[in-house]
Amino acid sequence: MPAFERHIFVCHNLRPEGAPRPSCTADGRSDLHAELQQKAKAAGLGNRVRINKSGCLDQCEHGPMVVVYPDGVWYGNVRPEDATAIVNEHLVGGCPVERLRVAEDCLNTKICPHRS
Amino acid sequence: MPAFERHIFVCHNLRPEGAPRPSCTADGRSDLHAELQQKAKAAGLGNRVRINKSGCLDQCEHGPMVVVYPDGVWYGNVRPEDATAIVNEHLVGGCPVERLRVAEDCLNTKICPHRS
Repeated sequence: MPAFERHIFVCHNLRPEGAPRPSCTADGRSDLHAELQQKAKAAGLGNRVRINKSGCLDQCEHGPMVVVYPDGVWYGNVRPEDATAIVNEHLVGGCPVERLRVAEDCLNTKICPHRS
Repeated sequence: MPAFERHIFVCHNLRPEGAPRPSCTADGRSDLHAELQQKAKAAGLGNRVRINKSGCLDQCEHGPMVVVYPDGVWYGNVRPEDATAIVNEHLVGGCPVERLRVAEDCLNTKICPHRS
C-alpha cells in the first residue's frame, strides 16, 4: 500500500533563455502546483494525496507537464485553470481527464511530431 | 502503459538552518541522484526508467527519501552507496530492497515514533 492514494508531480523545470527545448515554468514558479494543492485540500483529500514539484519530466514539448502515480497518467499543456478538473474528475472521481492526456505515442520518445 | 517502466523520485528538499524537520539534502545537492542515474544507465535501463529530483516528499524524519513508481515503494535513509542495490535488485531484478524500505506504519503519519 502506498503512503498516498495518489502522488502527483508537477514539473517545475526552468531552462536558460534560448535553450532548444521549452520549459514547463516561465520563471521557476507555478500557479498550477498551488492550484492543485488548494483544490485537493478543498475537496477533502487532505493527506490522501500529495502534490509535489519535480525536476524535468523529459516531456518538455508537451508541457507544462503533470504525472499522476500510481496510475501513470500523463497530462500535458496543463494550465492552472485545469486544476479543478484534475482534482474533481481524477483524484476524487477516479476518471482521468482525457482532454488533457498526452498521447501514448508522444510519451518518452525522441521522434514525436511535436519535437523539432 | 506509463511512459517509463519505473519512475524514481529522489527528494532534494533543503530546509533553512534550525528548521524543526530535517532536510533530505545537506546543501541542495545529492550524490544519490547522480549515482542512481549513472548506475541505471550502466545497467542498460536507458530511457526505460527515469530518475527525477523532487520537492519535499513529506517523510523527512526518514530521509534521504526515494520513492519508486508505479510500485509505490518508499526507501528511507538512502545513501549514494545504496544506488547499486536499488538499480540491480529493484529496477533490473524487480525485487524491492527490503533493508531500505520505510515501514508502512511510518509513512504518511504524524504519529510515527521517529517524529519528535
